[in-house]
Amino acid sequence: MIQSGYQLISDLYKMKDDSGAAGKAVNIRGWIRTNRDNGHIGFIELNDGSCFSGCQLVYDMDANGELKEASKYLTGYSIEVSGTFKPTPGAKQPFEVLAQEVLLLGSCDPDFPMQKKRHTLEFMREIPHLRTRTNTFSALFRVRSILCAAIHDYLQQNGFLYITTPIITGNDAEGAGEVFTVTTRNDADYENDFFGKHACMTVSGQLHVEPFALSYGRVYTFGPTFRAENSNTTTHASEFWMIEPELAFADLQDDMAVMEGLIKYCIKTVLEKAAPEMQFFNDLIDKEHTLISRLQAVADSSFKVLTYTEAVECLRESGVDFKYPYDWGCDLKTEHERYICEQVAKGPVFITDYPKDIKAFYMRMNDDGKTVAACDMLVPGVGELIGGSQREERYDHLVKRMSELDIPVEPLKWYVDLRRFGTVKHAGFGVGLERFILYLTGIGNIRDTIPYPRTPGNLTF
Amino acid sequence: MIQSGYQLISDLYKMKDDSGAAGKAVNIRGWIRTNRDNGHIGFIELNDGSCFSGCQLVYDMDANGELKEASKYLTGYSIEVSGTFKPTPGAKQPFEVLAQEVLLLGSCDPDFPMQKKRHTLEFMREIPHLRTRTNTFSALFRVRSILCAAIHDYLQQNGFLYITTPIITGNDAEGAGEVFTVTTRNDADYENDFFGKHACMTVSGQLHVEPFALSYGRVYTFGPTFRAENSNTTTHASEFWMIEPELAFADLQDDMAVMEGLIKYCIKTVLEKAAPEMQFFNDLIDKEHTLISRLQAVADSSFKVLTYTEAVECLRESGVDFKYPYDWGCDLKTEHERYICEQVAKGPVFITDYPKDIKAFYMRMNDDGKTVAACDMLVPGVGELIGGSQREERYDHLVKRMSELDIPVEPLKWYVDLRRFGTVKHAGFGVGLERFILYLTGIGNIRDTIPYPRTPGNLTF
Repeated sequence: MIQSGYQLISDLYKMKDDSGAAGKAVNIRGWIRTNRDNGHIGFIELNDGSCFSGCQLVYDMDANGELKEASKYLTGYSIEVSGTFKPTPGAKQPFEVLAQEVLLLGSCDPDFPMQKKRHTLEFMREIPHLRTRTNTFSALFRVRSILCAAIHDYLQQNGFLYITTPIITGNDAEGAGEVFTVTTRNDADYENDFFGKHACMTVSGQLHVEPFALSYGRVYTFGPTFRAENSNTTTHASEFWMIEPELAFADLQDDMAVMEGLIKYCIKTVLEKAAPEMQFFNDLIDKEHTLISRLQAVADSSFKVLTYTEAVECLRESGVDFKYPYDWGCDLKTEHERYICEQVAKGPVFITDYPKDIKAFYMRMNDDGKTVAACDMLVPGVGELIGGSQREERYDHLVKRMSELDIPVEPLKWYVDLRRFGTVKHAGFGVGLERFILYLTGIGNIRDTIPYPRTPGNLTF
Repeated sequence: MIQSGYQLISDLYKMKDDSGAAGKAVNIRGWIRTNRDNGHIGFIELNDGSCFSGCQLVYDMDANGELKEASKYLTGYSIEVSGTFKPTPGAKQPFEVLAQEVLLLGSCDPDFPMQKKRHTLEFMREIPHLRTRTNTFSALFRVRSILCAAIHDYLQQNGFLYITTPIITGNDAEGAGEVFTVTTRNDADYENDFFGKHACMTVSGQLHVEPFALSYGRVYTFGPTFRAENSNTTTHASEFWMIEPELAFADLQDDMAVMEGLIKYCIKTVLEKAAPEMQFFNDLIDKEHTLISRLQAVADSSFKVLTYTEAVECLRESGVDFKYPYDWGCDLKTEHERYICEQVAKGPVFITDYPKDIKAFYMRMNDDGKTVAACDMLVPGVGELIGGSQREERYDHLVKRMSELDIPVEPLKWYVDLRRFGTVKHAGFGVGLERFILYLTGIGNIRDTIPYPRTPGNLTF
């Protein structure tokens, strides 16, 4: 117990099954969500953030005239309460606290925006420092924290070392989109800049983490990445977190085994450790109210595998009038991915062996010379959740492919050189944390999954 | 088991206590650290990165002429080995593998720099993609990963939610040092820049995480932070990771309890989970070869507390001829901190209640009007390891202090406003991850604790 002298509401939830707890003296602190009374008895819904659920306080103004003051305390006020614990088996809330003393800690000025009435998610994006006090964001940021812990746990338990790849990088030649420049000057004179050359913010830790896989076998990055793309969509943010595991002595099959294991572990852990939050999303956010059962089905399923070529064949045979073309060589769009996933595989599916021209230079060329050992993991309702690949470990193949794509070798000599010094097969993948949260919660906009979202033109605080 | 068809060397270390394991067929893969032979029998020290220690392979060229090829394989080559497991109780290494087949996976070009001879740490900083294959860096990056996991574990177990505060921020007015600008332009026209205003890289997540503490009670950030300071020292980097817990309904005492608990838990966990690595640092890096016993003593001790005023008094009474002044009001230097810690407290000590003028604007003013509720945690051999404070939760006090220090309120209105909406006592602290690693390992330079260190003029890859 870190703090002494009071209980957390999460402690009270543990007390509820203790037969000797009834009548025990408790002292709790938190913020008022609602406060109503009938002139004699009042009810405060108190939340201290220690768990998703709050605690009902009952104050009897007839029995104790001093408690009349409590009826003036409004939504958002912080209070300290001394009282007794009362189990209420069978009731909606399993216990309540009968207040003997209610002490005001901090009131709210009248312009406090988080009143009881519902606000739109759009409005609340402008007040990221206060939207945290709503049920929706409490559930979101709890799931985010539990998910992050689950990711670390799964990978650490499976022998992966956590490597923090750099945010500031001199490698802006990866071609993964537009980048932000990092500078201490205002004139773009990068030779005389802080690092003596152009510096930018990372778009992916993959290239930097590969040397660690080629030393320690199994490693992962988990950190922020950045895209300076001027796209205003519900799934793009300029700053987002990525998990990028990388495995040595591994091929695409091994890679997919880790992806499947990670996703299933995370779903199970979130359903277990964030049960009230997930029930909230199921009941109030998901339109069909089937979120939990859909996730459980994915966690219990065996993921299927289709090659890209097979997938295109399925689209062709479907007879469906798709909006976008799906000829061999085209990138699959979300409508195609969802058809394959929901109608063909009827569950999570890996699409493998994509045409080389729609994938990155570092992916391993297959023997057909046309496709690469890449895979995307598709899930029902969303489409692509993860992308991965076996990396090209053969020096000659890699240099040839870079040449074909006009990617200069010199800035990436260190990366290419890994193929000259004890090269081994290796593979990896990248998961976008926020996309995963969208999938787990059913929330519709990436801006609501990030504490302080950054998008073009938006930098609140 | 993620990968099938072969064992990790860490698996073999688990087999060594299994009485039925002798003679079992094994298949392992890794990189050659050393290879020597007497013309008849050869010995390869193989490392696959699954654990700090490697595995000795024995190949009998007399018994199997095909194994003569293996004697040509050099340091750094990657190989796959089929053989049998042989426990060697009492020997330096608890088992060896008798090779039946040694397959070359990847050779090394002659310019492979990581030959058996010792390289300086300075030299290896220029090849961050290859230095990973040495014992020193293997130990360092393993301890880094285990320490990161321990930090997450301790905080999650104690009810702290993990919050990822933003890297790109519009708040450059915190006064915590020089900042990097983030831009997509080359002309400093920030009004027409990506975010429509000047953007920079965060120097601390504290201000951004406070609203989350004032919603969920206990939270922490753990992410990269940046300083554009032109200082070339052994303890400064331009990019480093910080852990910043923040607690609501908490004062400086509660804050110190978490700091002490976190440090002790991390020391114990690293000593337990990174035992071979810590033995390596104890024996080969620490000058006095007492690293482990010193850390164990800290983990077992009860941290002392002295006020700043008492500490200055101790310095005055010491009779020691310090290099720097230590009058009341001066910042304590490392020599003072180490004297207090090593000679007065004889162990870890918190110094509390510093003069307000040497601490940040957001720290809570004490009743004396001269000191603030801040604390630094000092440890023997290093000095300051963590700094924390209770935050000023009183609106009037905070605004007054900002005015005294000429800090404009407008850009931080959101932060100040938290004091108008259900304000409560709260406190927090910041731990520099790399400084903690320096302390735990005895390594001398922060550049060696970071996968790709960034310092003025240095941006390797």
